[in-house]
Amino acid sequence: MNVTVRGKTRHYRTVTFDAESNEVLLIEQRLLPHDFQIVAMRDFRETARAITDMVVRGAGAIGATAAYGLAQGALAFRGSDLKRFASHMDGVYQTLAQARPTAVDPVNAMNTIRGLMRHGESVSEQQALAVAGAEEFANEDAQHCRELGEHGAKLIRNGMKVLTHCNAGWLAFVDYGSATAPLYSAQERGRTFHVFCDETRPRCQGATLTAWELAQQKIPHHIIADNAAGHLMQRGEIDLVIVGSDRTLGRTGEVANKIGTYTKAVLAKRHGIPFYVAIPLSTIDWNLKSGFEIPIEERDESEVLGAWGIGTDPNSRKRSGKPGARTYVRVANPSSPARNPGFDVTPADLITGIITPMGIFKPRDLWKKRKELGGF
Amino acid sequence: MNVTVRGKTRHYRTVTFDAESNEVLLIEQRLLPHDFQIVAMRDFRETARAITDMVVRGAGAIGATAAYGLAQGALAFRGSDLKRFASHMDGVYQTLAQARPTAVDPVNAMNTIRGLMRHGESVSEQQALAVAGAEEFANEDAQHCRELGEHGAKLIRNGMKVLTHCNAGWLAFVDYGSATAPLYSAQERGRTFHVFCDETRPRCQGATLTAWELAQQKIPHHIIADNAAGHLMQRGEIDLVIVGSDRTLGRTGEVANKIGTYTKAVLAKRHGIPFYVAIPLSTIDWNLKSGFEIPIEERDESEVLGAWGIGTDPNSRKRSGKPGARTYVRVANPSSPARNPGFDVTPADLITGIITPMGIFKPRDLWKKRKELGGF
Repeated sequence: MNVTVRGKTRHYRTVTFDAESNEVLLIEQRLLPHDFQIVAMRDFRETARAITDMVVRGAGAIGATAAYGLAQGALAFRGSDLKRFASHMDGVYQTLAQARPTAVDPVNAMNTIRGLMRHGESVSEQQALAVAGAEEFANEDAQHCRELGEHGAKLIRNGMKVLTHCNAGWLAFVDYGSATAPLYSAQERGRTFHVFCDETRPRCQGATLTAWELAQQKIPHHIIADNAAGHLMQRGEIDLVIVGSDRTLGRTGEVANKIGTYTKAVLAKRHGIPFYVAIPLSTIDWNLKSGFEIPIEERDESEVLGAWGIGTDPNSRKRSGKPGARTYVRVANPSSPARNPGFDVTPADLITGIITPMGIFKPRDLWKKRKELGGF
Repeated sequence: MNVTVRGKTRHYRTVTFDAESNEVLLIEQRLLPHDFQIVAMRDFRETARAITDMVVRGAGAIGATAAYGLAQGALAFRGSDLKRFASHMDGVYQTLAQARPTAVDPVNAMNTIRGLMRHGESVSEQQALAVAGAEEFANEDAQHCRELGEHGAKLIRNGMKVLTHCNAGWLAFVDYGSATAPLYSAQERGRTFHVFCDETRPRCQGATLTAWELAQQKIPHHIIADNAAGHLMQRGEIDLVIVGSDRTLGRTGEVANKIGTYTKAVLAKRHGIPFYVAIPLSTIDWNLKSGFEIPIEERDESEVLGAWGIGTDPNSRKRSGKPGARTYVRVANPSSPARNPGFDVTPADLITGIITPMGIFKPRDLWKKRKELGGF
């Protein structure tokens, strides 16, 4: 999506590949929202490290980064010995797969590309297929988000006020995002609307990443404390809620997403406000039979006990410090412990619809439509 | 309540008066939870400034501070001319009343004491009445909170998990607090229970003040992000919610309290968890006919866009910096605006009961009981 750098606006993706220099180019997401920088990964090991160190994060974005990393590793091979090439590629694959061992997207992406490469009869043919396959993977991720956005945009009418939670934006994918894609499509259609971004404590991805995306895209918005959404709903200031999903149960329509999502769904239900979840197909889990089976990660308490930011005068938008110089402050009572569940589960009865690249479905209809949605 | 300073535990009040040295002694609340200090106000002007600068905050606490400030001003007068004394006291009254012009408690407290002083026939008699009146005011504030706590403690059974929001603790009163008083009474009765403190963004009074109070009182607790309460309720980890109130409508049972209170009430209703509001009588408004008439203060956006804390390593409980050296960090995207409503209104249908010094009432029964509760 759009980013304005030194007065010049242009369209960026979170990850692209320069085959000529054999570099994977990434937005350095750890500097956002305070600084924007593109960094070049010069070999697949650097690309793997960027995934590990969260230079790039988000399911779609790390899938595409691993895909490009695999192509980058393939191009780096000199020679024509297919056997030596195959063993080289095993090493590349392992390095990238281990970059974030619990993530499923990098492995899925690389498996797709290795399947394609088998059609090549020489090293150079296989190299070309790897590059083409990685490009196709990234394009498909962007295309799916765009289609999802087109379906979701139908929900957004002029003058509406839309609430979002956390960041399921283009920064987490190759482009467009999931929960944000309907906003970008609606903007493209000339609709005017206003967005409220939950700051999304404790990691504040709403206040940092979603707000940055919307500001870059010139979509009018306000950041709010997570505590304020209920009040705004009560006063008629929210017309629609759109959130993303980390895991969607195909059998039950339950949605696991960033902590606080469930709360917004309960509030929306009380006020009769439509609550939609935008998902890329890769988040659908066709196996689990209940949301209570989803393990809820308990994260480090330091996230709740403090905050990361840039030292500044509260009344000024100026800043001190160099790019990336975020500091941690402890807000809470130093002798108190914290609980920090990272996700929660929203049941189907609170969800108006699931927005997918194939259309909008009732959460309990996913199972009926499982063939269409890439299930079994 | 208890505070441990350099290994020694003793009972403190937020405000006390030393008639001999004519000093008002305050807990310097702006240093909490990172540092504990008692500061002495040497004349009524300093006491007024302490109210303005929020060295002391909270309805009951600033009421008692103004009462003591009035006595302090009275004692500072030299001479026996009643007319000159009366004009001196007008100045004292005005100075203290203007310390926080929108607050009603300081004015109510001082009016009570001036009424008492009229019974004195000499300057020294009136001075003695001022001191006695201020002591009585402070004692009554503490006594009311204690009675409220005794009623509320009946709700807390062994093994319960109790959720609180913001700080309606002893720091906001002379002692015991409102929402915290039932916890302290239950502890005194030997009950064991666990407290979850909402951090209460944006100002985080739960993570700072309530957590500090509970830690000093050795009540087991965890701080949670405001987003986590719904998840904990869903998983059966919360049995009871107790919050405070900034304004309680005697006619309707609606409660205005810190932003986010309404959200917790909606969540509690969905899960069938009892939701109680603990109030000192001074917060009851017998006039307003609807919660929508309550003006909701929109506070500075810097509160939402960042956080105040002590610079430290996130993995350590050690700190850098001198006492009081809190710094502000901007967390959010620098070019995004924020909305910051400070309060919300919880309707009576979500409130299980109102805990008062006179007992626990259904919110819609307040009007019926208005004589007993100090109404008209």
